[in-house]
Amino acid sequence: MLKLFYAANTCALASHIALQEAGADYETVRLDFRANDQRKPEYLAINPKGRVPALATDKGILTETPAILAFVAQSFPKARLAPLDDAFAFARVQAFNSYLCSTVHVAHAHRMRGSRWVDAADAAAIAAMQKKVPQSVGECFELIEREMFVGPWVMGEAYTICDPYLFTLASWLELDGVDPARFPKVRDHRQRMSERPAVKKALAEELG
Amino acid sequence: MLKLFYAANTCALASHIALQEAGADYETVRLDFRANDQRKPEYLAINPKGRVPALATDKGILTETPAILAFVAQSFPKARLAPLDDAFAFARVQAFNSYLCSTVHVAHAHRMRGSRWVDAADAAAIAAMQKKVPQSVGECFELIEREMFVGPWVMGEAYTICDPYLFTLASWLELDGVDPARFPKVRDHRQRMSERPAVKKALAEELG
Repeated sequence: MLKLFYAANTCALASHIALQEAGADYETVRLDFRANDQRKPEYLAINPKGRVPALATDKGILTETPAILAFVAQSFPKARLAPLDDAFAFARVQAFNSYLCSTVHVAHAHRMRGSRWVDAADAAAIAAMQKKVPQSVGECFELIEREMFVGPWVMGEAYTICDPYLFTLASWLELDGVDPARFPKVRDHRQRMSERPAVKKALAEELG
Repeated sequence: MLKLFYAANTCALASHIALQEAGADYETVRLDFRANDQRKPEYLAINPKGRVPALATDKGILTETPAILAFVAQSFPKARLAPLDDAFAFARVQAFNSYLCSTVHVAHAHRMRGSRWVDAADAAAIAAMQKKVPQSVGECFELIEREMFVGPWVMGEAYTICDPYLFTLASWLELDGVDPARFPKVRDHRQRMSERPAVKKALAEELG
């Protein structure tokens, strides 16, 4: 059975929602970041990166949200979570998710995880990073709103693995100091996503 | 025909090598970052992100290296650049490339592109970022060397779209202040990659 390692309020929610949408048979293992579970030897044996998500499968461990999302879509083709028979359309899905992973999430991470990129003791540099987050994250969502989001779902008429990932990162906007009202399409999407049974179920488990 | 928009000494090299390895019929368009070509209206109409690579196809534009690499592998299946009929093995390929994109390249980018994440006028914060690059990039390559690289190619016996991407980022080690001698497998891989005709041809065009 698939087993998802996650922590609450992290990007692992995207994979969790996708497993729900796929109708997958899975279980979850919750890590407590406040207890630094992700740095303990038993978890590093599963994911040496010390991050979430990680997905244990019968063939081995998978990491990285874009890879896990595409794996879920390919493993449960009946759920139609990605255009699997069209290399170009699939690449558009992947490009969107790659942008979320490598640009949007990274911009966000400079608020709480600045010590990845400067000395943790350099309070001024940490603060300088935090100060720019509203601008850098805001610019990412401007681009998504203006250029990328097709509607009603990210890629158009079809719900895909882009939707739970955007929902997850868009749920951090207020904490990042960005007003969601600037992005009507993204805000409406977030509201509609929050009403989906798969999303409610994943959130209830993670936050319950 | 496929058309790759690239700039010299960027991650676009990975897509360029993959197109060569695939035997694709393609042409290239070179952007000059010193002239800020990537910020000019004619290029922003192609890629609103103002980054490279971008790949023009007969169906539209693709961006993001992991997405382009998977697209090339899927579009030229005879070149066997990814395990296309095994969702788990394909996801492992994607996870490696996602790590390069969202963690390794991002760590590297703090040397030259720090103004993405702090005010460009904050010289102390920019310098604080640059100072940590040897450590953060070095830690990424330690993980690759110890946990991820199978050998003789990244994923094992089969050459995949992971190989040109690792080669591209590993070629920046010295500039990032990291001694490649610390990573014998990665260094050997870089040497063997540099001898491949596809790599020589892509490099000759980009740097010639």
